[in-house]
Amino acid sequence: MNPTYITTFTAYGGSGVSRTRGPSLAAKYGAVGAMVRSLASNLDDFPHTGVTVYNDSFPKIPAVTISTNDAEYLSKQLKNVKKADAYFRTTCKMLPDIPGYNVVGEIRGTKFPDEIITVGGHLDSWDLAEGAQDDGAGVVQSMEVLRSIKACGIQPKRTIRAVLFANEENGGRGADKYLEEAKTRKERHIFALESDAGGFSPRGFRLEMSAEKQDKIMQWKDLFEPYGLFETGAGGSGSDVGPLREIGTALAGLNTDSQRYFDVHHAATDVFGVVSKRELHLGAGVIAALIYLVSEYGLTSSL
Amino acid sequence: MNPTYITTFTAYGGSGVSRTRGPSLAAKYGAVGAMVRSLASNLDDFPHTGVTVYNDSFPKIPAVTISTNDAEYLSKQLKNVKKADAYFRTTCKMLPDIPGYNVVGEIRGTKFPDEIITVGGHLDSWDLAEGAQDDGAGVVQSMEVLRSIKACGIQPKRTIRAVLFANEENGGRGADKYLEEAKTRKERHIFALESDAGGFSPRGFRLEMSAEKQDKIMQWKDLFEPYGLFETGAGGSGSDVGPLREIGTALAGLNTDSQRYFDVHHAATDVFGVVSKRELHLGAGVIAALIYLVSEYGLTSSL
Repeated sequence: MNPTYITTFTAYGGSGVSRTRGPSLAAKYGAVGAMVRSLASNLDDFPHTGVTVYNDSFPKIPAVTISTNDAEYLSKQLKNVKKADAYFRTTCKMLPDIPGYNVVGEIRGTKFPDEIITVGGHLDSWDLAEGAQDDGAGVVQSMEVLRSIKACGIQPKRTIRAVLFANEENGGRGADKYLEEAKTRKERHIFALESDAGGFSPRGFRLEMSAEKQDKIMQWKDLFEPYGLFETGAGGSGSDVGPLREIGTALAGLNTDSQRYFDVHHAATDVFGVVSKRELHLGAGVIAALIYLVSEYGLTSSL
Repeated sequence: MNPTYITTFTAYGGSGVSRTRGPSLAAKYGAVGAMVRSLASNLDDFPHTGVTVYNDSFPKIPAVTISTNDAEYLSKQLKNVKKADAYFRTTCKMLPDIPGYNVVGEIRGTKFPDEIITVGGHLDSWDLAEGAQDDGAGVVQSMEVLRSIKACGIQPKRTIRAVLFANEENGGRGADKYLEEAKTRKERHIFALESDAGGFSPRGFRLEMSAEKQDKIMQWKDLFEPYGLFETGAGGSGSDVGPLREIGTALAGLNTDSQRYFDVHHAATDVFGVVSKRELHLGAGVIAALIYLVSEYGLTSSL
């Protein structure tokens, strides 16, 4: 996790391969087990878990993440003694699948009810923690969009749907199912926004859509700057709304201040107490504002 | 503390009078004691202390702050029963003054050693807490400016001085003394920057200087935007560097993301653990960058 990147997601993107592909690559070269340094920004004693993808060409060796403090220690030991013994035992196993569910709520549009705007986060989290920032925050914000629009007495022109996705962390089958249903029902999804970067102070939106639609959103930037949002531009949306790109939906993701995200990401420390209520609210507020603008004015330049 | 202000300092500015002047005003109308709702953004059980100024025309009644949860409870009780008894006892007293000290370190300028640039925070904090964000963060960042400039092998053109001010919370006598010494020694202070808004993600600089000097700094804004600094403009600098305006010094203050500051400000919760190392570093880095630019290029438009 290169600490010199200002945005921690950039560091995560660069080093994630050590966990996702590292164990299989180690097996290729004869390793009997793999201990991966946690993909964390800080030094502490908590392992940060996450996806590992095995390559069927090589033995499926046991793989664990260790805390950054432990990794520092181990690294120092190896530098000093060149050789060190390590022992670990895992009790991991694959359990059979059980049904999971996306949770969906919506406010029907008054003028264009068939044009659907989705705002979502994901319900699941890794087993070792509450998943408060990843992605309890996005779940709460998505529901808050509907609540706040109702509380303001707004009857939106387009249908606004909050979706709490299942199984983001472990395959994205909730997201795939949402696309499948959209196709089966021939739904028209004009816009989908994901909040999965934590309930931190919002900084802007990542826009994954045509240049024309980006321009439309950028016309509203003066409305967002008083809320501290200066970092809106082209970027990847997120894995829950991502499948909708197949049907041409304009996609977006909330950009947050990312400095603290990888302190707790996928670790036992990602609990309710690390979420700032004001930061969470501020994020929900700006998402609701963008969703409202798209609902009122659409994303085609003619409107 | 009006929660609808995006910047919490604006809310603090608007409601601070309840603590600073409220008790004397209550005494004017016959109060025998004053309980002030803590100037905090969040609901919790911790009182947030701070300055109260007595007006000699009215009795100096005992005054305390109570936690926001307690204030909510009391307010609800008063709405229900119209009348409620409360009892409190304070053991506060004024102790005699003892000497305190500003702590000063500097790197002498190679080309214009007589032109002094100050970067500072304050050493003191309220008795009930560590004062990690207010203003341990500013103290550490000020020292980090010197350390990082040395670590980069830079020999600055102008003299860069880190000042850890005494007595910011209780009268500003460290700041006054610093000005007094500057005048006595006929020092030339061209720029002074204060960090006293917590070790949170930096957002920009508040500039308290002539329009020409502001323009000079704004010419560098593209250098700061990649670090997330989009909120630089005219604004008050801070109470430690403030006295230097008497001798014409260009002043500035670090703007931070303020959402969490008043959760802990002047309360027992302002401890080491609430400071994010990355956020603190990022603030120190951008301060050092601005200090370096001023040291290299000065603030007069000709250079």
